[in-house]
Amino acid sequence: MAIAAVTRAGATIGTVGGMEIGIVGGTGPAGRGLALRLAAAGYEVVVGSRSQSRSLEVVDDMLEPYADRELKIIGLPNSQAALADQVVLATPWDACAPTAVELAPRLKGKLVICMANALVRVGREFHALYPPRGSIAADVQAAIPDSLVSAAFQHLPAKELGEIETPMTGDVLVCADKSEATEQTIEIIDKMPNLRGLDCGSLSNAAPIEAFTAVLLQLNRLYKTRSSVSITGLEDGD
Amino acid sequence: MAIAAVTRAGATIGTVGGMEIGIVGGTGPAGRGLALRLAAAGYEVVVGSRSQSRSLEVVDDMLEPYADRELKIIGLPNSQAALADQVVLATPWDACAPTAVELAPRLKGKLVICMANALVRVGREFHALYPPRGSIAADVQAAIPDSLVSAAFQHLPAKELGEIETPMTGDVLVCADKSEATEQTIEIIDKMPNLRGLDCGSLSNAAPIEAFTAVLLQLNRLYKTRSSVSITGLEDGD
Repeated sequence: MAIAAVTRAGATIGTVGGMEIGIVGGTGPAGRGLALRLAAAGYEVVVGSRSQSRSLEVVDDMLEPYADRELKIIGLPNSQAALADQVVLATPWDACAPTAVELAPRLKGKLVICMANALVRVGREFHALYPPRGSIAADVQAAIPDSLVSAAFQHLPAKELGEIETPMTGDVLVCADKSEATEQTIEIIDKMPNLRGLDCGSLSNAAPIEAFTAVLLQLNRLYKTRSSVSITGLEDGD
Repeated sequence: MAIAAVTRAGATIGTVGGMEIGIVGGTGPAGRGLALRLAAAGYEVVVGSRSQSRSLEVVDDMLEPYADRELKIIGLPNSQAALADQVVLATPWDACAPTAVELAPRLKGKLVICMANALVRVGREFHALYPPRGSIAADVQAAIPDSLVSAAFQHLPAKELGEIETPMTGDVLVCADKSEATEQTIEIIDKMPNLRGLDCGSLSNAAPIEAFTAVLLQLNRLYKTRSSVSITGLEDGD
């Protein structure tokens, strides 16, 4: 779709590269962080929400610190965000598959990146939950078989993701059952400076990747930090 | 126990620091690699096997390239390896809990490190299996409740582990239900130069840690390397 809208900074969406990414359920911390990082990389980003007014409000807040930059981010309902060229699902984990089903006709044939982790707080820890197919991403792929579903962005701390003046380092582990989904996802990641997208195979591996977030949250709590994952032993990512 | 034996290099076991580690099922690649790395760090290591002659043969092979170093490694039956001050379970994953039960009286009150990953080959990938309690380590702790069970060393490539002339970098993710198990395990890791032991909470997190090995094996295959995990965002490990 061509997004006709004007950003806070006055730039017209749809005029630069034509690369549009919609973030369904994008008003949470992870969605907001990713939207900013994608916009900083040159993407036109649609932040979707169940509520149009909520998405507008959140986008205004997001763009405020960056009024001097031409970040192309607009707020729209989820149903509109799903019309973008490529889509990220950033809803809470238990809404991912139901939301995907609801938007299925609009997601057909497209890349759908699932960034969710199914976690539950138990005492002072977060524990990983294993959904029916082992991972949220595999559940989503099963729910929308005509889309190209990948799992990615599970391990990047949301706050740092949104601090776009600071380059973010780390590896983004990507997996998908369809190789085109992996390729398109890594292409997006490679546009973000210092981040490296790694092909981690099929969605069978989304289970350990999603669940590993519980380990990072535990490290964050104990070591009072924002941890992420880096893979050693690889040179230049390929 | 005091191990009365003479290593290939002529040094008598039991005379240095008195720190003994027994590796039950230690004749496989991971056990051998860890035995060498522990011995290089000053430990006296007992490599256990179901077969006494097999353990002797393997230890002879292991020590051969390092004849000029005083590595204190001996081969003994598993039942003897289990008498060491601290024990590592390095059997195949499906033998971990049964072996622990068999050796339970000798493991009572002691640190038992579980380094297994439950993986199955499916086509060209390895997939993680989830045992009844989510991880091998949790199964083992349930099987020997009077021992201090930790999960550790899942992600270090076995070959590099054994190449003791080359310092090995990387993070060793440790979890345990009993804090003493975590502390003792991290103390061991900290004796190995450049390796950093990280407290990853309870054995609930052993599930994603063990399963994550499937991701590393996938990366090894695709990127033709020996990958491991490093956690970013932490400074100096604590």
